[in-house]
Amino acid sequence: MSSAQQPFSDRLAEAVLRAGNPLCVGIDPRWESLPTSFRQRYDDTLDGRAHAYAEFGLRVLDLVAPYVAVVKPQSAFFEACGPAGFSAQQAILRRSRELGLISILDAKRGDIASTATAYADAAFGVWDADALTVNPYLGRDAVEPFIQCARAKQRGLFVLVRTSNPGSGMFQNLQVKGKPLYENVAAEVGAWNRENLGACGLGDVGAVVGATHPQELRALRALLPEVWFLVPGFGAQGGRAEDIASAFRSDGLGALINSSRGITFPFQPDDPQWESAIVKATRETITALKAATGSKSGV
Amino acid sequence: MSSAQQPFSDRLAEAVLRAGNPLCVGIDPRWESLPTSFRQRYDDTLDGRAHAYAEFGLRVLDLVAPYVAVVKPQSAFFEACGPAGFSAQQAILRRSRELGLISILDAKRGDIASTATAYADAAFGVWDADALTVNPYLGRDAVEPFIQCARAKQRGLFVLVRTSNPGSGMFQNLQVKGKPLYENVAAEVGAWNRENLGACGLGDVGAVVGATHPQELRALRALLPEVWFLVPGFGAQGGRAEDIASAFRSDGLGALINSSRGITFPFQPDDPQWESAIVKATRETITALKAATGSKSGV
Repeated sequence: MSSAQQPFSDRLAEAVLRAGNPLCVGIDPRWESLPTSFRQRYDDTLDGRAHAYAEFGLRVLDLVAPYVAVVKPQSAFFEACGPAGFSAQQAILRRSRELGLISILDAKRGDIASTATAYADAAFGVWDADALTVNPYLGRDAVEPFIQCARAKQRGLFVLVRTSNPGSGMFQNLQVKGKPLYENVAAEVGAWNRENLGACGLGDVGAVVGATHPQELRALRALLPEVWFLVPGFGAQGGRAEDIASAFRSDGLGALINSSRGITFPFQPDDPQWESAIVKATRETITALKAATGSKSGV
Repeated sequence: MSSAQQPFSDRLAEAVLRAGNPLCVGIDPRWESLPTSFRQRYDDTLDGRAHAYAEFGLRVLDLVAPYVAVVKPQSAFFEACGPAGFSAQQAILRRSRELGLISILDAKRGDIASTATAYADAAFGVWDADALTVNPYLGRDAVEPFIQCARAKQRGLFVLVRTSNPGSGMFQNLQVKGKPLYENVAAEVGAWNRENLGACGLGDVGAVVGATHPQELRALRALLPEVWFLVPGFGAQGGRAEDIASAFRSDGLGALINSSRGITFPFQPDDPQWESAIVKATRETITALKAATGSKSGV
């Protein structure tokens, strides 16, 4: 079966099993963290930053592609460079596809009706990402147009359920019907996801669940056995490898563990060996994830 | 006091009082709704659509600027044209500023920490909008970086509280502490807003409250007397003029009533008189709003 016809969930499962690990590399370019050589060659203007982000991001993809299955460009950093930033985002998503990587565009979009459809058309048509992060606050008709567009192209979604930030509890932890709001969101995600399960037993409407809440991660795994989790907050944000073991199903699938700065900026800007530092960080992170999760990490 | 130093809330109040009405014109360009002459002159490609959207949007601004104070470009439709779409969005926001219009970039952004800051830098720096719509689901540290960036530049925010779509109740209406979730969000918006009130008695953290829920609009007005409301859902989505009267404070300020398609696409594509149709729709909508709200419409 060609990958274009394969359900998103099966394509993701195959890619993770092939790589042998669940690491997702976040591409969050920051001007002040780039290798000094980039900041010498490009002007500190919006266009200059955009070109530097493209070159750096493409190089990161080449470096990590032999090791990982999934990458996650963060749209905000590209948007902060204006229109040229989106050309950089587009170049990175194109290269991801050429390299056989699964791409998750982290844009946290959310709107209603035809506006949601326009965002989904952008994500899966214009940017050609394999998956998109989506914010559920607007409710049913803010998520369903994204699901419809994703399914028409065998793509996937990751809906924000429980985010990794310290202030996330302000609304996500409010008690509704005896359980926190995020569990109510999780239940809806579970229902959407069950509409389109792949052969691997997982579906195409995933959940974003932060690594900084390990007990909740465990509870959500039990609640949503068929849902892919995208787990941010590992590494720089404080989530530890042992915290994320419970994110996986017993077959070792079901979770993608994201690391952004820990993989892409493990060097001082003036370090000429920054490329080998990225490869080293990638390999060490994979080793740490495998040690913490035993055989449960997509191997 | 120059407008650049004036608090956002006072600048908005002055602009609304000067225009004499609370109408906000939504700029939501759609290829299939454009005048036929545009679709003849531009290719139906992403770049062609982007150029057509720019030309159409700029013309709409010129047509409505003599009548209204506020415009709201919808970022999704520009994003659906790729990088060139964002150049069109930028051109429209620049012309808004040149024309003395207050611009609200409707992008419903939401993310955490430095990522939220990147979105805010984009909104208020790169795109140079006067205000941005923000999604609160990620909690405190997803909203506060936007507030900080907005205040550094005397800009404003509109936080999603109660949206106008039929499926909005899925999460927004869940009961928390004996009241719907959206009232809990509203209370937080009220607290953020009170941190920075202008001389007009209103603040810089507004609320999006749909016209399709008139009783809730009334209750929220009572709960949040110092908060600017951005009220979508009027016109094409079913909200009627009499439904929105309760959105205003007794001094006639405090609400912006958005209409998008009703103002910008009141014509058949082959109508050569489309420009006068836009002017007519603008004037009629203002008359209807004034009739429904009596003296309570920013006059």
